[in-house]
Amino acid sequence: MAKYVKFLASAGYFPETVVTNDELSQIMETNDEWIQAHTGIKERRYAIDENTSDLSTKVALKLLKQSNLQAEAIDLIILSTISPDAITPSTAAIVQSNIGAKNAFAFDISAACSGFVYALSIAEKYVRSGQYQNVMVISAEVNSKMMDFTDRTSAVFFGDAAGGAILSASDNPNDEMYVAEKLATKGDADVIHSGRIAPLSAVKADNYPQMDAFYQDGRAVYEFVTSTVLAHIQQFLAEQKLTADDFDLIVLHQANLRLIEYIAQELKQPLDKFAINVPTIGNTSSAGLPTALAERLSDGQTYGKVLLTGFGAGLAYGSVILNLQNFSQK
Amino acid sequence: MAKYVKFLASAGYFPETVVTNDELSQIMETNDEWIQAHTGIKERRYAIDENTSDLSTKVALKLLKQSNLQAEAIDLIILSTISPDAITPSTAAIVQSNIGAKNAFAFDISAACSGFVYALSIAEKYVRSGQYQNVMVISAEVNSKMMDFTDRTSAVFFGDAAGGAILSASDNPNDEMYVAEKLATKGDADVIHSGRIAPLSAVKADNYPQMDAFYQDGRAVYEFVTSTVLAHIQQFLAEQKLTADDFDLIVLHQANLRLIEYIAQELKQPLDKFAINVPTIGNTSSAGLPTALAERLSDGQTYGKVLLTGFGAGLAYGSVILNLQNFSQK
Repeated sequence: MAKYVKFLASAGYFPETVVTNDELSQIMETNDEWIQAHTGIKERRYAIDENTSDLSTKVALKLLKQSNLQAEAIDLIILSTISPDAITPSTAAIVQSNIGAKNAFAFDISAACSGFVYALSIAEKYVRSGQYQNVMVISAEVNSKMMDFTDRTSAVFFGDAAGGAILSASDNPNDEMYVAEKLATKGDADVIHSGRIAPLSAVKADNYPQMDAFYQDGRAVYEFVTSTVLAHIQQFLAEQKLTADDFDLIVLHQANLRLIEYIAQELKQPLDKFAINVPTIGNTSSAGLPTALAERLSDGQTYGKVLLTGFGAGLAYGSVILNLQNFSQK
Repeated sequence: MAKYVKFLASAGYFPETVVTNDELSQIMETNDEWIQAHTGIKERRYAIDENTSDLSTKVALKLLKQSNLQAEAIDLIILSTISPDAITPSTAAIVQSNIGAKNAFAFDISAACSGFVYALSIAEKYVRSGQYQNVMVISAEVNSKMMDFTDRTSAVFFGDAAGGAILSASDNPNDEMYVAEKLATKGDADVIHSGRIAPLSAVKADNYPQMDAFYQDGRAVYEFVTSTVLAHIQQFLAEQKLTADDFDLIVLHQANLRLIEYIAQELKQPLDKFAINVPTIGNTSSAGLPTALAERLSDGQTYGKVLLTGFGAGLAYGSVILNLQNFSQK
């Protein structure tokens, strides 16, 4: 059994097309001033003619390069998304084929904007089991394709991106990076949902499946984050006999800048301790956290304890504490 | 760390509405003779006005009753589906709320018709980690809502169902039930797919998400199962120094009766060693395997080694070997 779990690589990818608030105001009833005041978002990226597997494949290739691994060395690909290429097959299976990871099995998980945290937790269990050497985790979203652009309360928030990491088995105790996890769900299907598909009401000839667009109740999300998620972080730190001061870096789901500012204030931490990309990338659902993490880990600094906290539809939320003092970006 | 993983409960649920081949022939160009000759399917069930979370909740309540656990004792709900209530939130989160499993976190996995095997593998890792006591695994499908009833090559195969199990941590070596696993993916997005969602081709006002219906290339599926999946089973058994004779029960994904007959013949095993429900339930994707398993485990017999093999879109496939000699259905 592998005793230790190593953090081997971290990467992000953003599609090329920049969409500013002014551009959005040309296709829906909104304006730059309102968007910036309420969300801190100036612009976002849209994946035009690129699907979720395309963004994921670019991240996967970056991760392989950075870790100096051949694709054949990957044992498992876990991909979190709420905007998959298809409901089936998994987007992970398409990535497996695209990069030639012929020894890997692959599956997607649906845990909304907590997807990266949940996928890391699953990856850690597989590596720790001692049966698997290298597990690739990717969170990828093409949110733009799920939007109804007549719904200005949702569409202005979102953008497209992909980020990921590789966890590997190690015999060296200095490599150990996984400190603790706390995952929770507060079952609720109404606050945030996307792609709902109704069952048949009768056996009839004219069925063809349909789904609805992305929806969120902004006020309820705000309540959830400022009460439940904040209390979750505080409880987790207390259980681990840690305080926010013990962390070099905190990476929250990039829902919007105002929520990150709120949590920073409540934890009495400077905003520059938080990895932030939402102003220029938008809310990229489960991809926001790993892309913000990857950007900071490539800045040449060394980070010790890192707190990752995801929250979103489900309502699924959760945190992991990593110790990355021996990780250096190649 | 929990040393041993116990198989605590197994259950299935089928919706009430029976749809015969003759009934299908009234809404699409098909007939009973063709369907029975090619698939062995006589009838299937459709979930009318019931969604995937409804079927799942009924299974979850059966599992709690059978295991004599309170909902609060569940730490994690893993749900596999290719026909979720919505792309987000996870159907697992809705079940968590419906049954009041307030201490559980929850997520869905997308691994097509291998979903139950993959979810069992994940559940085993969480229980084995020693951090979680009871993990509920559910595979649930409302395939009927994903069908295009003008496509007779796909729609005649499918039905709706839900099945599941509970794995628990134990200190008793006699409880150990998880012998080995072998999971694999042969990346392919074309042979079987459902609910594909295209990316935007431009930033434009009139977007509203759309997806396509279920599709399978029956000939390619047959090739995949009779070559790749059969070879996978034979290799797995050889690696484990076992032969098919060592098993009391074999449960394959319930794709169609002819494929199960083929595998039985190749493994030189009598057909009654195979749990089978496809003739009266149809192909229920990831729910076929756990429902067929649950039916056999409730028949009063004791089963020792059990082989579970899933295969489907992805192409994701895999097998687990269980030892259920100390499991008795309550």
